[in-house]
Amino acid sequence: MSEVNRVFTLAARPVGFPKESDFNLIEEPKPAPGDGEFLVRTKYLSVDPYMRGRMNEQPGYAASFEIGKAINGGAVGEIIESNNDKFAVGGFVHGNWGWQDYHVSDGSGVLPVDPDLAPIQTSIGVLGMPGMTAYFGFLDICKPKPGDCAFVSGAAGAVGHLVGQIAKIHGCDPVVGSCGSDEKVEYLTQHCGYDAAFNYKTDTNYMAKVHELCPKGVDCYFDNVGGKLTDAVFANLALFARVSICGLISQYNLKQPETGPRTSYMMLLIRQASAQGFMVPQFSKKFPEGIRQMAEWFKEGKMNYREDIMDGLEHTPRAFIRMLNGENKGKQLVKVS
Amino acid sequence: MSEVNRVFTLAARPVGFPKESDFNLIEEPKPAPGDGEFLVRTKYLSVDPYMRGRMNEQPGYAASFEIGKAINGGAVGEIIESNNDKFAVGGFVHGNWGWQDYHVSDGSGVLPVDPDLAPIQTSIGVLGMPGMTAYFGFLDICKPKPGDCAFVSGAAGAVGHLVGQIAKIHGCDPVVGSCGSDEKVEYLTQHCGYDAAFNYKTDTNYMAKVHELCPKGVDCYFDNVGGKLTDAVFANLALFARVSICGLISQYNLKQPETGPRTSYMMLLIRQASAQGFMVPQFSKKFPEGIRQMAEWFKEGKMNYREDIMDGLEHTPRAFIRMLNGENKGKQLVKVS
Repeated sequence: MSEVNRVFTLAARPVGFPKESDFNLIEEPKPAPGDGEFLVRTKYLSVDPYMRGRMNEQPGYAASFEIGKAINGGAVGEIIESNNDKFAVGGFVHGNWGWQDYHVSDGSGVLPVDPDLAPIQTSIGVLGMPGMTAYFGFLDICKPKPGDCAFVSGAAGAVGHLVGQIAKIHGCDPVVGSCGSDEKVEYLTQHCGYDAAFNYKTDTNYMAKVHELCPKGVDCYFDNVGGKLTDAVFANLALFARVSICGLISQYNLKQPETGPRTSYMMLLIRQASAQGFMVPQFSKKFPEGIRQMAEWFKEGKMNYREDIMDGLEHTPRAFIRMLNGENKGKQLVKVS
Repeated sequence: MSEVNRVFTLAARPVGFPKESDFNLIEEPKPAPGDGEFLVRTKYLSVDPYMRGRMNEQPGYAASFEIGKAINGGAVGEIIESNNDKFAVGGFVHGNWGWQDYHVSDGSGVLPVDPDLAPIQTSIGVLGMPGMTAYFGFLDICKPKPGDCAFVSGAAGAVGHLVGQIAKIHGCDPVVGSCGSDEKVEYLTQHCGYDAAFNYKTDTNYMAKVHELCPKGVDCYFDNVGGKLTDAVFANLALFARVSICGLISQYNLKQPETGPRTSYMMLLIRQASAQGFMVPQFSKKFPEGIRQMAEWFKEGKMNYREDIMDGLEHTPRAFIRMLNGENKGKQLVKVS
């Protein structure tokens, strides 16, 4: 086992699309746990779209990453040394220590992971932040009713491929998604309960496509993407529609902010619809309910999930960039050890 | 009393800003009430921004007016002939018969008006559609809490000058509005409980102005206007802000739809805020509560209202156009008889 802790730091704030050179891999001595502390060796870490926002300097948003400082984010690991009775060697915890080999904790900010319940990496995936994002972001904001038409943009992503299944379980019909490849279209319709999906890179008349697949209008829109696709969904909103704004990945890497038609905002008035943005921590008090329900659906075979695992901490920036590019299939993770 | 019923019809769908030539004043024989019917002579009629939308041919919106057909909208009148025991001659009713001298009814679609409760024209103003729009559109959607900053665009209009007072009664602080003249600024701050207001025609750096007047961000935004002013308010939304979209008068008379920054939509995500469009009939079951409460506030002197009355049915298009231009001070009405 290495005596070195490799840590990714932010070398520069990305301008437009991130490059690997925006990140530095530095080496530090492996940290040693003090009294009451324990040492965790990272097994998997998570790269997620919201991290792109944290790389900007934007007042009011989730705290920005600092240049030269470690990049944090979801990670899960094994306790390999411990001076804390509550956290024994051999146990697993997840937390937000991010892109590095090791983490020292006194127990605050981490939660134990039961490896017998589900593979440990689900704690930073389907049973973690992305899963809770799908569960509460869809149910609490879109408030689906049986027979509602649900549309999900970024439908094959870590969150989107779960939202479709949750929508189906709640009786939405049809459940429709957009994604970035024909292979993803097949995956969504064969394995994730989507009634229909289309490839936004080749089916570019979004207005017509959404209208064709959602002929009675969209009642529930779960938006991971924004931009022109969202314009098309807004033009097709049903009366009293509910829009949950989870992410806007089409907008994160623009060098210049885009403009769009003001008619989208007007559609909220015309359709008497609502749109609400959220970040998942606002639901954190209810996470136990969400985790219990999602775990039950998996056990009952009502839900599938998909992981896209890249091997090696040193490839984390590449995993992050390919995820922003939509090259991942399901939840993008990095296997560290 | 004339034996002729003068009726305004839509001559042409306005392109951009309406002109008086978009309307025709035709003459019909005064209608006669049949069995169970009664004849109403219009006393006042209402011209409102939403009517501009109905002049377009736009699928999904409130039913469009038809070319050559009478323009309907709020009106109040006196029963002058009756074959219906429940509606005696000398009584008053309000309904939606619109821009004409007379109306025959069997009682459906009209409601009695008590002239002792308040001046009869309040039934199509502060205690009618505009009043209910202010009351439920603000309270049910903006969900104000004491200490919230409330911002109202179109603050001196029929709805806006009421919203500010309702916000103040509910403890909002500060209550800030935008309007189209210095005289209106003074009216809002002297008589309508606004803590501050500005003239959007002369104070054109909206971003800086909203930030100056709402330094902690806008918690409750009641939007009558849309466009650039709304961009500025969105840029200054507080965390978990609520936006009630009542109208978008800046957008109704454009020949070509405008574009605007997509960052406004992103602000809903960044501030975890919500925006909801509404039309007041969705609250109609609760109107009795709203009317009772508003009437009580007037009686207690907690609320003022303002009317801008033009004399003569023949001037209705002019009243409508000046209202769209923002030349009215308070609720624009037309006195017909």
